[in-house]
Amino acid sequence: MTNDNQNPNSNPNPNPNPNQNPNLIIINAYVLTMEGKGVGMIEDGAVAIKGNKIEAVGPTKQILADYSSKADEVIDATNKLIMPGLIDSHIHTGLGILRGVAQDMHNWMQDGLWPFMKHVTPEDSKKGSMMNIIEGIKAGTTTFCDYDSNMNQLVQNYVAVGARARVAELINEIPDDIGDLPVGELYPFHPEIGNRKLQNNLELLKKWNGAENGRITSMLGPHGPDMMSLELLQEIKELATKYDTRLHMHVAQGDREIDQVFKRYGKRSIAFLDEIGYLNERLLAVHLTEATKEETEQVARSGAAMINCSGSIGIIDGIVPPILEFIEAGGTAALGSDQAPGNNCNNMFNEMKFVAILNKVKRKDPSVFPADQALRLATIDAAKAVGLEHEVGSIRVGKKADLLFINLEEPSMSPVITKPVRNIVPNLVYSARGNEVESVMVDGKFIMKDRQMVTVDEKQVIREVQQAATAISEKVAADPKLPASTPLLAKMELGEL
Amino acid sequence: MTNDNQNPNSNPNPNPNPNQNPNLIIINAYVLTMEGKGVGMIEDGAVAIKGNKIEAVGPTKQILADYSSKADEVIDATNKLIMPGLIDSHIHTGLGILRGVAQDMHNWMQDGLWPFMKHVTPEDSKKGSMMNIIEGIKAGTTTFCDYDSNMNQLVQNYVAVGARARVAELINEIPDDIGDLPVGELYPFHPEIGNRKLQNNLELLKKWNGAENGRITSMLGPHGPDMMSLELLQEIKELATKYDTRLHMHVAQGDREIDQVFKRYGKRSIAFLDEIGYLNERLLAVHLTEATKEETEQVARSGAAMINCSGSIGIIDGIVPPILEFIEAGGTAALGSDQAPGNNCNNMFNEMKFVAILNKVKRKDPSVFPADQALRLATIDAAKAVGLEHEVGSIRVGKKADLLFINLEEPSMSPVITKPVRNIVPNLVYSARGNEVESVMVDGKFIMKDRQMVTVDEKQVIREVQQAATAISEKVAADPKLPASTPLLAKMELGEL
Repeated sequence: MTNDNQNPNSNPNPNPNPNQNPNLIIINAYVLTMEGKGVGMIEDGAVAIKGNKIEAVGPTKQILADYSSKADEVIDATNKLIMPGLIDSHIHTGLGILRGVAQDMHNWMQDGLWPFMKHVTPEDSKKGSMMNIIEGIKAGTTTFCDYDSNMNQLVQNYVAVGARARVAELINEIPDDIGDLPVGELYPFHPEIGNRKLQNNLELLKKWNGAENGRITSMLGPHGPDMMSLELLQEIKELATKYDTRLHMHVAQGDREIDQVFKRYGKRSIAFLDEIGYLNERLLAVHLTEATKEETEQVARSGAAMINCSGSIGIIDGIVPPILEFIEAGGTAALGSDQAPGNNCNNMFNEMKFVAILNKVKRKDPSVFPADQALRLATIDAAKAVGLEHEVGSIRVGKKADLLFINLEEPSMSPVITKPVRNIVPNLVYSARGNEVESVMVDGKFIMKDRQMVTVDEKQVIREVQQAATAISEKVAADPKLPASTPLLAKMELGEL
Repeated sequence: MTNDNQNPNSNPNPNPNPNQNPNLIIINAYVLTMEGKGVGMIEDGAVAIKGNKIEAVGPTKQILADYSSKADEVIDATNKLIMPGLIDSHIHTGLGILRGVAQDMHNWMQDGLWPFMKHVTPEDSKKGSMMNIIEGIKAGTTTFCDYDSNMNQLVQNYVAVGARARVAELINEIPDDIGDLPVGELYPFHPEIGNRKLQNNLELLKKWNGAENGRITSMLGPHGPDMMSLELLQEIKELATKYDTRLHMHVAQGDREIDQVFKRYGKRSIAFLDEIGYLNERLLAVHLTEATKEETEQVARSGAAMINCSGSIGIIDGIVPPILEFIEAGGTAALGSDQAPGNNCNNMFNEMKFVAILNKVKRKDPSVFPADQALRLATIDAAKAVGLEHEVGSIRVGKKADLLFINLEEPSMSPVITKPVRNIVPNLVYSARGNEVESVMVDGKFIMKDRQMVTVDEKQVIREVQQAATAISEKVAADPKLPASTPLLAKMELGEL
């Protein structure tokens, strides 16, 4: 089980250490390891867990023989699928409180998000983030690559809830009221803003990288090539080398970014980032919505990873990002759920299904982007893309015990067919919606069990978010600067909302 | 409340009969009536139900004043959305048992479905149908336009479960082993097959149309213009006039149909159907996958309805059907979930989200196909398309009490924002996945309550389907006629399933 290309079914003894006493063994399950070139399915499989790690994985018979007398607890997972927790490689949980205020329009940020966002306090944002995290966990997300302002606060939600997080502060040099600037005008840069946000990110790195027994890690988070001065971009690049960390960054995320960069530097975003030394293995290039085929291939060849957000980019831009072209050029890619104002969910089952189908219709070919490929992009490939491949993304001895228990007796996953072809992975990607996830384990501990959150009071979180959102909406409605008309105000007028 | 274009909020007294004693009033809810030009939202709304019908709808205060002393039961629906049950305008529940055997390939029918389908008995099919119906109900479908073989058997599932159904027998003249015929060869027609299936459909019409107090209705179901002789097509058309019934029919559903019709009649499907008098208000034209813009507009102008199946056609064909073009040409359209072998779910929330986003990317415009439009296509517009507009599709006095109770405290629907714009409908279409449906009422009776089926034992149904599917898969694996390779057998070999 130490070789990526090895088929777990062909390994008669994946258990390196049969004298260990595991805390828990899970038996009689379909175990989707995501190891090897395929999906690494073990049909009558078992997993042994010791502390926060996977101690062994293999056929039930063998794990029982090696461990049953020594385990503290045995879970019979008959009719369940055990699989790696899903990785959401790009999410802004700080926007969770504004679910559904920015879809079905052009200029979603200016006309949809901004009139609300200006009234959201850091406390509101933290509450909405917790709701967003619960939403993700209940749909099988165990690792959140959260990328937002105020991350030193938001990260505490992950500590409390027990999920894995790989966090970055959104660093930019633009003022909070940038939403009031007419589209097309160059953003003003304020070095004191950039410096403050950079310091927040450095604090995050120092305080939280490796915290909670490694469950929390941190990156640097430049907002985009258009969002700060060349000087700050260069400083961040040097800090990434100094701290040996990755860069979570929007790249070619919209025509507005391309326009700003071109006006400022006379180049498109990717040529500019190449010139300043950003295109390399450290970079998580998020979206690439506006990248041409050539630019996409250039990023892929550079060793940077691509994070693809099918749901949000479909809704807010009407575009299918070039992930297939990126992968074909040899790049490592992953999926993200982005933001709730215009997606409007943070559910990796949604992202897996959309990335597959949108690329089928983009290529007019139902055979492209099969289910297993979509699944890899939310598990093992995502782990590689975000730099957690030695920790999570597959069920492998020594990796963290971040596991999902999927109920295969939900109608949407029934019946299970195993011969002559298996239908579990296609149904997981094309039929499951998230509520089939019965229990979620992170670091060997259940954080959701039988659809109930273990570590937080879900109802209380929802109530607090609702109160905060109601207060925000009162402020928006009373805001004298609220535009006389936006696309959604017009729809409201027509009774369409 | 008797005029389609009336806004329910502008109607101070929607209650025609305040002296009636309702059985039930539902108060303190967000009520999404789907009446009027928009979505007809009543924010502090209530619904009164008498027998199987809606007795009154309006503000809670008013309904309480008129009815509270007389109602048998009052349900407090605080933090819930009450909306019309969803209409699945095209579903083959008889294929439910083969969920997930036919995706990610060309020739899904020949290479995916057929090797399994030939081993499915009518009893297997009926069991899978029940599972499929439960899946639909748990995701808010209350009306199923089921179109399949063996419908005199399948219809009994709807009787048992208590859902609304509008059923048609799949009439064709082709032998059961048609899947073995090489692609491109003309189908052989067998009049005795056609006659038997037509008789089944006539039996369905006579025995079931209007049964269960009108909960079950029936149509005629010609399989497609390529699937039977001209003589039988003409006979069916005459019977539709005689019985004054609609025709549920695949039209331009794939290149294979176009090829067969062209080889036989020297015309494409739609020109042929026009010539033989099929293009009119009686027709439910399903798919139009291969229809050109001109052909699509021709069908729309004829008064025929279009049924659009985004999920299945995306997966099995990699195509976005021309529903937007159809609607722009003035046509009435609706959505269907089609079939589980390659969709792989039967969930109208999935269809609403996909039709909106796929059309946004098709037009490269995020403002097209807004959430309210998608919602209408699964409610009031669907009711019009399938000929049930006087019965269901909106919450209106005198219509059937087919209602969903949506839990707005699920994370995916939270928070609720009502001013200055409302986020409920966008979140219902873009974020909800079906499990937000807490309870389902059909004909004034709960058939699902608090996520539990009321009328059938869900676990028992799933167990029986699993047993039948296991037996089928044993037969498929042992079939000497199983092709040496299919796309899924090849993926199985590679460990990708």
